[in-house]
Amino acid sequence: MADLHLSIDRQGGGIAVQVAAELREAVRRGRLAAGARLPSTRELAADLQVSRGVVVEAYEQLVAEGFLVSRVGLGTTVAATAAGTAAGTATAAVPSDEEEPAAQPAGLGVPYHGHRPTSPDLGFFPRERWLAAMRHVLTTLPSDALDYGDPGGVPELRVELAGYLRRVRAADVRPENLVVVGGVAQGLSLTLHVLGRTRLAVEDPTSQRQVPLLRRAGAELLPIRADAAGIDARAVEASGAQAVLVTPAHHYPTGVVLSPGRRAALIEWGGLILEDDYDAEFRFDRDPVGCLQGLAPDRVVLCGSVSKSMAPGLRLGWVAAPPEVAARIRRARGELDLGSPVVEQYALAHFLRTGGYDRHLRRMRREYRRRRDALVRALAEELPEVSVHGIEAGLHIYLELPRGCDEVAVARAAQDLGLAAEPVGPMRFTPGPPAIVAGFARVPVHRALPAVRALKVRMSGQTID
Amino acid sequence: MADLHLSIDRQGGGIAVQVAAELREAVRRGRLAAGARLPSTRELAADLQVSRGVVVEAYEQLVAEGFLVSRVGLGTTVAATAAGTAAGTATAAVPSDEEEPAAQPAGLGVPYHGHRPTSPDLGFFPRERWLAAMRHVLTTLPSDALDYGDPGGVPELRVELAGYLRRVRAADVRPENLVVVGGVAQGLSLTLHVLGRTRLAVEDPTSQRQVPLLRRAGAELLPIRADAAGIDARAVEASGAQAVLVTPAHHYPTGVVLSPGRRAALIEWGGLILEDDYDAEFRFDRDPVGCLQGLAPDRVVLCGSVSKSMAPGLRLGWVAAPPEVAARIRRARGELDLGSPVVEQYALAHFLRTGGYDRHLRRMRREYRRRRDALVRALAEELPEVSVHGIEAGLHIYLELPRGCDEVAVARAAQDLGLAAEPVGPMRFTPGPPAIVAGFARVPVHRALPAVRALKVRMSGQTID
Repeated sequence: MADLHLSIDRQGGGIAVQVAAELREAVRRGRLAAGARLPSTRELAADLQVSRGVVVEAYEQLVAEGFLVSRVGLGTTVAATAAGTAAGTATAAVPSDEEEPAAQPAGLGVPYHGHRPTSPDLGFFPRERWLAAMRHVLTTLPSDALDYGDPGGVPELRVELAGYLRRVRAADVRPENLVVVGGVAQGLSLTLHVLGRTRLAVEDPTSQRQVPLLRRAGAELLPIRADAAGIDARAVEASGAQAVLVTPAHHYPTGVVLSPGRRAALIEWGGLILEDDYDAEFRFDRDPVGCLQGLAPDRVVLCGSVSKSMAPGLRLGWVAAPPEVAARIRRARGELDLGSPVVEQYALAHFLRTGGYDRHLRRMRREYRRRRDALVRALAEELPEVSVHGIEAGLHIYLELPRGCDEVAVARAAQDLGLAAEPVGPMRFTPGPPAIVAGFARVPVHRALPAVRALKVRMSGQTID
Repeated sequence: MADLHLSIDRQGGGIAVQVAAELREAVRRGRLAAGARLPSTRELAADLQVSRGVVVEAYEQLVAEGFLVSRVGLGTTVAATAAGTAAGTATAAVPSDEEEPAAQPAGLGVPYHGHRPTSPDLGFFPRERWLAAMRHVLTTLPSDALDYGDPGGVPELRVELAGYLRRVRAADVRPENLVVVGGVAQGLSLTLHVLGRTRLAVEDPTSQRQVPLLRRAGAELLPIRADAAGIDARAVEASGAQAVLVTPAHHYPTGVVLSPGRRAALIEWGGLILEDDYDAEFRFDRDPVGCLQGLAPDRVVLCGSVSKSMAPGLRLGWVAAPPEVAARIRRARGELDLGSPVVEQYALAHFLRTGGYDRHLRRMRREYRRRRDALVRALAEELPEVSVHGIEAGLHIYLELPRGCDEVAVARAAQDLGLAAEPVGPMRFTPGPPAIVAGFARVPVHRALPAVRALKVRMSGQTID
C-alpha cells in the first residue's frame, strides 16, 4: 500500500483513526477509485506494522460512513458513490428560490422549553472556561469587530468549525461553505427558505417539533418509513421528493444508524440531502460515524449545533452547504436578521482553538457513557419486556413497549420520575408499536436503578388499573 | 389641576419630565378626555409651584408626541386620537398569516458590514461593565436557564425592557407584548412574516438596506414621499396600503421628526404602523420624542435595538406589538430559530436593572452631542452652500448639496476622510436633490474641522474637473 501514501504517526495515538483518515482522503482524492479492492486487513496491518485490529476498526469505520463496501467472500472495495466526490459528480438539483415558501400557521401544542429527551446535563456547562473565553474576547477584540458582522458568521469561527468538522465529523468543508446560524432549527429554516417550496421527504417517525418548522419554511412533507436500517432511498425516489431530511448518525426517535447500503443509495439518488447531525458527537462504543456530507459535499447540507455538546441556550450552530446554496443562505441571513451575535462566535472560536471544546466533549462522553450504561443495565434487569434500541450514540434511547401498553401514560410516569421522556406516537405519520424516547443525559448513575424500579411499579400499576 | 393628581417629586430632578409623564398618564387613563382643554402654562405653573418654562417644556414634549394639540388662539387640548388608548379603539386590521409571503431574491449590491452612517463609536463600548454583567450571569444563573428558552425572550429581560421603554420612550408596553429579537431587521422580518403578503407603505427616501429585507419578508412596497414634516397619512391611505413602515423619531435618511399633526393623522388612519425606533435614544437638545406606540399600542408595532446604543454585533433588539401580533411573532420564532441566545439576554437585563445601560447612554449622549456640534459648526463655517438637516437627534445628519453636485463623488470623498457617508440617491424611489447622509458618531471633536476643510477642497476640485 506504499503507493497509497498512508502516512501514520506512531507517536500520535489513535492509529485506527489515522488509518481511517488516510484511507478516506485517498478515496476523496481519487487515489483509490470506485470499485477498487483494498488489501485484506491482515495484509495492510503487516504493511503498516500495526495490529490487525487497528485496520479492522478503520475499515469498519469507513464502511459505516459509506466510503467502503464490505461483502462476504468479496473483501472490501471502494464504494461506487464515494470516490472522487470532491472532483464532483453533477451538482444536486436545487429547487429555485423564485418560488414562494408557504407560511402555514401551526398549533401551539408543543412546549417551547424545558427538558427534552435530547437535552444535555447543563450542570456540566463549562461556566468558568466559557467566561474565560468571553473575557479573552472582550479584552482583545478590536472595536470594529463589534460592528455589523458578516451575516455568514465570524470568519475566525468558520475557520475553526471547518477544521473541527473535518476532524471529528469527517466532513468535506471549507470556511466558505459554512454559515454560522442560531442552531439546527434556523439552519433548516434558512435552507428551506432559499430552496423555496420544496417537496421534502422526512423520516417516519420524525421529531414532532420539526414538523411545524418545516411547513412554515415552505416544505411539503412526504413521510418515508425509517426501518431498522434507516430510510430507504428507493422509497424517497418513489415519493417524488426534491430533497430529503435525515438524521443518519442517530435517527430521532428510534436511534437507528443509517446502514452503509442505505447511505450509498441515498447518495446515488441524487436529490438534495439535508443532514441533521443533531447529536453526532456522542457515540460511545466506537468512533462517530462520519457525516453524509463528507461523502457528497455537492449534494448534502449539513446542519449541526452546540446545543447538545454545550447548551441549547447558546443558540450557536452551523450549516455546511454546497457553495451556491451557502451563498444564498448567507444572503438571506444578511437580509432577514443580519447574522448571529458576534461576541459568542468569537468565544466559541477561541474555545475550539484552545482545545476547551474537545476537552469538554471528552469529559461529557465519558460521563454520558456511564449514565447510558447504568440506565440500559437497569432496564435489562428490571424491565426485560421492554425492548431497548438506539443505545450506540446520542443522549436518548428508544424503548419499544409491550403490546397494549399506553405509551402516553408510561412517558408521563417516566417524566414524573425524572427521566426526560416523550411518547413516540405523536412523531409517527403511520401507526407503530407503543414506544417512548427517554433521555439519559440528566440521570446520574446512582439514580438509574431506582428510577427504573419506580417506573416498573407504575407500569405494573397501569396494567392493574 | 388638583383633580388630575399630578404628583411631582421636587427632590427628584427633571421636573418637566415628571410633569410630562403625569400628563401622559392622565391622557392614557382617560382622566384627561379627548378634546379637553388644558390650563395655560402660566396657570399650571402656578398650581404646581414650578417655573412656567417647566410646563412649556412638558407641553411641547407631549405635543411632539401627539398626546396634546396646540393651536394659536385656542390653547392646548388633548388630541382626539390620544385619549384612552389603553382602553382601546378597535384593533388594527392585521392581514392574515394564512397568505404566503413572497421570497423575492435580491441583489448583493449592499455591503453587509463595516461602518454605516448610523454606526456608533464602538471604541466606547463598555467592555468591562459588559464583561461584569456576563460574569454575574454565568456565576449566578441556574443551569436550567441554559436550556431551550422561551422563544419570546428571557422573562427577566422583557420585564426590564418594558420598564425601560415606558420610561425612556413613553411606550405603552407590558412584558407580554414584547418579543426579544436579534435587532430591528429581524423584528421587521418576523412581523411581516406573520402578517403574510402585505401592501406596505414606506417612506421615500428610505434606507436601501431595508428594501430587499422587506421584499423577502413578503411586502409589496408602496413608496410615499416624506417631506419636511414626514410622511403624510392621506397619501398612505390613498395608496391602499395595509400597513406603513415609519421612522417617526428621526427619519432615515433626512432626519426629519414626524410632525405632531402627521403623527395624529397616521394614528387616525387606522392601519397597522411599523415603527422603526432605530436611534431614538439620541436626541440632543430636548427630551426624546415619545414613540408612536405609546399613543396607539393597539395598532403600532415598535421595533428597537441596542445596535446604536451599545453595538450592532450584540444582535439584541425587541418588538413591542399588540397582543395577538406579539403571540404570532413569538410562535414564529419558536419554529424558525427557537429564539435569541440567552446568556446575553440575561446580561442585558442585569445591565438595565443595575443602571449600567442608562449611565452608558448618558455618557454617549454627551459625547455625541459634542461631536455633532463640532461637525455642524464646521459645515456652517466651511461649506455654507451645503444645507444641513436632521441635527436634532440620531447619529447622522442629512446634507443637501448644491444643484449639480455629484452626490456619489462627495460621499466617496467624505468616506475617504473618515466620515461614514452615503449618497441618498439609491434610497430614493423618486428623484430628489443631490444629498448625502454623514455619520458623526465616529468623528472626534478635533477631527471635525480638518475633515470638513478637506472635504471642501475635494468638492471644489470636483467643480474644477
